[in-house]
Amino acid sequence: MVQKQILLNAFSMNCVGHINHGLWTHPDDRSTRYVDLDYWTDLAKLLERGKFDGLFLADVLGAYDIYGGSLDIILKEAVQLPINDPLLVVPAMAAVTKHLGFGVTSNVMYEPPFLFARRMSTLDHLTKGRVAWNIVTGYLDSAARAMGLARQVAHDERYDLAEEYLELVYKLWEGSWADDAVVRDREGRVFARPDRIRKIAHAGKHFQLDSVHLSEPSPQRTPVLFQAGSSSRGQDFAATHAECVFISNQSPAGARDIVATLRDRVAHAGRRREDVKVFMGITVVVAPTDAEARDKYEEYRRYASPQAGLAHFASATGIDFSRFAPDEPITHVRNEAINSAVDAITRRETGWTVSRLLDQLALGGRYATVVGSPSTVADALQGWIRDTDLDGFNLTRTVTPQSFADFIDLVVPELQDRGAYKTEYAEGTLREKLFPGTGARLPDTHAAARQRYPHEATAGSPRAE
Amino acid sequence: MVQKQILLNAFSMNCVGHINHGLWTHPDDRSTRYVDLDYWTDLAKLLERGKFDGLFLADVLGAYDIYGGSLDIILKEAVQLPINDPLLVVPAMAAVTKHLGFGVTSNVMYEPPFLFARRMSTLDHLTKGRVAWNIVTGYLDSAARAMGLARQVAHDERYDLAEEYLELVYKLWEGSWADDAVVRDREGRVFARPDRIRKIAHAGKHFQLDSVHLSEPSPQRTPVLFQAGSSSRGQDFAATHAECVFISNQSPAGARDIVATLRDRVAHAGRRREDVKVFMGITVVVAPTDAEARDKYEEYRRYASPQAGLAHFASATGIDFSRFAPDEPITHVRNEAINSAVDAITRRETGWTVSRLLDQLALGGRYATVVGSPSTVADALQGWIRDTDLDGFNLTRTVTPQSFADFIDLVVPELQDRGAYKTEYAEGTLREKLFPGTGARLPDTHAAARQRYPHEATAGSPRAE
Repeated sequence: MVQKQILLNAFSMNCVGHINHGLWTHPDDRSTRYVDLDYWTDLAKLLERGKFDGLFLADVLGAYDIYGGSLDIILKEAVQLPINDPLLVVPAMAAVTKHLGFGVTSNVMYEPPFLFARRMSTLDHLTKGRVAWNIVTGYLDSAARAMGLARQVAHDERYDLAEEYLELVYKLWEGSWADDAVVRDREGRVFARPDRIRKIAHAGKHFQLDSVHLSEPSPQRTPVLFQAGSSSRGQDFAATHAECVFISNQSPAGARDIVATLRDRVAHAGRRREDVKVFMGITVVVAPTDAEARDKYEEYRRYASPQAGLAHFASATGIDFSRFAPDEPITHVRNEAINSAVDAITRRETGWTVSRLLDQLALGGRYATVVGSPSTVADALQGWIRDTDLDGFNLTRTVTPQSFADFIDLVVPELQDRGAYKTEYAEGTLREKLFPGTGARLPDTHAAARQRYPHEATAGSPRAE
Repeated sequence: MVQKQILLNAFSMNCVGHINHGLWTHPDDRSTRYVDLDYWTDLAKLLERGKFDGLFLADVLGAYDIYGGSLDIILKEAVQLPINDPLLVVPAMAAVTKHLGFGVTSNVMYEPPFLFARRMSTLDHLTKGRVAWNIVTGYLDSAARAMGLARQVAHDERYDLAEEYLELVYKLWEGSWADDAVVRDREGRVFARPDRIRKIAHAGKHFQLDSVHLSEPSPQRTPVLFQAGSSSRGQDFAATHAECVFISNQSPAGARDIVATLRDRVAHAGRRREDVKVFMGITVVVAPTDAEARDKYEEYRRYASPQAGLAHFASATGIDFSRFAPDEPITHVRNEAINSAVDAITRRETGWTVSRLLDQLALGGRYATVVGSPSTVADALQGWIRDTDLDGFNLTRTVTPQSFADFIDLVVPELQDRGAYKTEYAEGTLREKLFPGTGARLPDTHAAARQRYPHEATAGSPRAE
């Protein structure tokens, strides 16, 4: 039997501090150069050298203002603020690579779907089908206020809106232009056939639209769909829409449960269990030997900012940890969002305090963390894959780009030697690379397929749907 | 006295047919490759070789559905449909150039200002201050319907909204972060100083916002501001906000009147008359001799589509020309928008018919057109500059990129020999290149300056404005 190949995304963000906070102060760290194009083009070339499947770019539209009710530590440690637009770094990276995929995060609450659909079609054209969309609904009141709302829309209503948003962008991407609409016939003077293009008329609860899609069909039409919802409603959404799901957990048992539940829901939604690839966030510190790796971890940790990690976690949970004494048991009304955030970094059953959180969040703590030699790291990664039914990892950055370079120089060859990681990219779009043999377009079992341009020829004007 | 240097933008759009329609059918035309990154990076390198000041990218968010009430000719001839996002081609072009500026069009009616402000800050960072924004308010009901409205907002109300939009983005770009907010102090662990960053609280008629700007200050902060409004209200808006204005006219006398009126309004707004650079749209067909240029013009014209030009013009004016017989006098209730569109292509006083429009719109007709040898073209361009007080031109494409290459190979050296065109780029941002000696930021006399972060030190939390 062919060994399962580990999928791998680099996890980053168009900002200084992303997950492992404070490391921008390390002398070798280059994350403060996120405003420079060559920071991104160099990163893309590095990742393609390491045969990474993709670069996954997170995003957030608000500021983390929960901790102490201020932005003091957030700004001092550049905790996802300042933060620039993720889509705009992709074209320059695409120009210097051939295979690397690009996952970009965009929020359905705030980006107008008609304009967003054109942006993604444009990116899919420019990258020749290497783009993925991480669908988020947001969770910050500060983002809602930035967008002119008093507070954010309630959790389940956000998913109602997201469902309608997806229906609408599927209609634009899949249903407005027939596959044979664009003929580029110079001699016949027909660039596109009007009888093979139709307006999309959508009148829903949250959105209205009456237009053709502005972009001609791109290689993948709908970008590869990522999602990371951990709530029950979020998992249902993922089961219907997601092709890749991003999870976080500290224990193989916990991760295994999440993956199994998710695949059950995927099957329930009429799709194959393997139609969703599951990626887990992970932090890796690697060096030639275990001892050197531990030293490197301790050295990095000296530059880390646990306080910044706590301020970030405060906004993830909505809990202002500044109101607790260091060893005071944190009691707080739990809800699903808080529980999943807490599950991700620790065991819910054990008590937690600010002291314990600071220790946990100093370096790597938001995700599973592996420190060791190439062999130790490869053992751990293969163990996760074997024990949990995961498909791959979103690899966080620590000292950047050094931590990605270390992984590529040390871990990738080890995994390749073990037959657990590709030695060459497959040809084709990102979707074809992730799901070999299925083609550039979404499978017929996916919800988007219902919005496709009808197979039968249509007649008449493109003004009518 | 130093001779006035002619400023020059290439005028294009992320689509096939832009201004001179039908030329995509010419065997040498590459515009159908607009979906490929190297189409854009090659163009950028070409334009920088020609020392163009910028590439000016138009945009439109709706389809031209007035002519015959259908999209038939629009789709067959690819008249600005399909059309992809203009911002996303800029980063790849910036990565292969050092000096070329990039003007992108974005519509204040439909792009949320908080998100748009971050996009432009991101572009200004990535290009190191080479980005300009062409502010448009739109004019198509089809765009309004695409965005979920029954019809577009009325003309003057669009400008009211635009005024508030500008106030808001100025606050974000100029007023949220002090110049000395970002210190990047690794040893002191201060990336940004919280006491030098403030939230913007805006509660207006059209927009509300309560947030810090997400991006740290970029080289220009506010991008160079382009505007093309030709109505009286549009000219007032330009007089207040624009640094560069794009006009179109067929006659030196007409252009001179527009420029003089505009500069009067600029002075009335408390700015210097020269604080606005005026560019006129122009089409040039050049060859080594006048006779060869005329032959080339006639050859291009054989591939042109006057019908496509007329369908485009129908949406510009709102008049369905399909309802007129070829030689029937076109009588139509004129309004300001129609008059300015008509002025741009012909003399309003003379009668016009579909036959005359088709002849006029076949090639170059939407803008002044010059056909001739390098010497003839240079004479014409210098004549326009001398007679009208224009500062430069937006050069349309005909057969692309050939027409830009011809201009660069033939006209640019001629203008340089005459001392009328730069032989080297100036250093600095786009604003510093266009307005030597004034710095990267807007002058104090500009409306945006009122929104600047206060000079006096502020104390306290960034939560308060």
